[in-house]
Amino acid sequence: MSKIKGSGKGTRKETIIKAAAALFREKGYGAASMRDLAEKVGVEAASLYNHIRSKAEILQEICFGIANEFIVYMDEVENSQLTELEKVEKILRKHIQMMITRHERVYVTDHEWKHLPEPYYSNFHNQRRTYRKRFTAIIEQGIKKGEIKRIDAPTAVIILLQSVNGIESWHRSNHRISAAALEENMVSILIEGIKKN
Amino acid sequence: MSKIKGSGKGTRKETIIKAAAALFREKGYGAASMRDLAEKVGVEAASLYNHIRSKAEILQEICFGIANEFIVYMDEVENSQLTELEKVEKILRKHIQMMITRHERVYVTDHEWKHLPEPYYSNFHNQRRTYRKRFTAIIEQGIKKGEIKRIDAPTAVIILLQSVNGIESWHRSNHRISAAALEENMVSILIEGIKKN
Repeated sequence: MSKIKGSGKGTRKETIIKAAAALFREKGYGAASMRDLAEKVGVEAASLYNHIRSKAEILQEICFGIANEFIVYMDEVENSQLTELEKVEKILRKHIQMMITRHERVYVTDHEWKHLPEPYYSNFHNQRRTYRKRFTAIIEQGIKKGEIKRIDAPTAVIILLQSVNGIESWHRSNHRISAAALEENMVSILIEGIKKN
Repeated sequence: MSKIKGSGKGTRKETIIKAAAALFREKGYGAASMRDLAEKVGVEAASLYNHIRSKAEILQEICFGIANEFIVYMDEVENSQLTELEKVEKILRKHIQMMITRHERVYVTDHEWKHLPEPYYSNFHNQRRTYRKRFTAIIEQGIKKGEIKRIDAPTAVIILLQSVNGIESWHRSNHRISAAALEENMVSILIEGIKKN
């Protein structure tokens, strides 16, 4: 039986969560078992329980960790002196970068959060709604200031966030443009698309 | 035991496929059983087999039926005298309308086609790739003609097609803008986004 890599308790847990994110991404949260996870980490299932209590706990750590990153960034952007259009661009870029650099965790959060147990499920659902409302409010403010054209702001938010999910196809395709080029293309299309001429 | 509604063999089959699309959308193809389907249609499971041979056959009919509609439309658009930008707009509108009017079938096709048995799986995969290549070629032609700005065409296709999937959230949300307004908003953002100024 091998030991879980990582020098402290924190980093060993991190090793498990990293493997779990890849596993949930691959098999889906529902179908993935603790046995699969143990195999992926290369240890006995029993030894996982020294570090985490349950499969649900791992999902919680993934979802709330990702949510924190987005929320902290939203706070920063809201408190900045940028124009509303620049704020939208910043948030869009953050989503693209997260989808590229933390692909598995972002994917799992987006696709599997509905499996969170209560009270996490309702709490996460609310956070998600609040986040989208804040994003919508920036766009509405931008429309009011004449920086953004007269569009339906919630629809614009859907388009912006949904487009970023397309990066999933980019990950899987053979069409290899760099992450930076992908980001510039998305920004160019989407930010020009909402900008008032 | 009730009879399956519909006056001829064709329409009874149609009733089953319609119910199946809703069921696959709801539960996922893998988790949905013929028993669930029979319950949804309101008949005994055995009587379903007078009309269809298997769950896989239903998925085949859904996926290939939807693919046909998109391919026929693509043929029409390619053979038209429209500008390349107008062609892109036409195709985008088609995707939006299909997602609104045939929501369940389009959703199931997009999310569950990977469960198709061979030879359908490989055949569908090829059709999908060909379709995206044709869409990409129109955008590349538009760039060459100076109608569309210099973007990476495959990335633009990903953004356009992926945004349409956001209509799923629109379906589920309480934010009620009309289907027509949704379409105009999406076109306004995305077509302006790729247009050369």
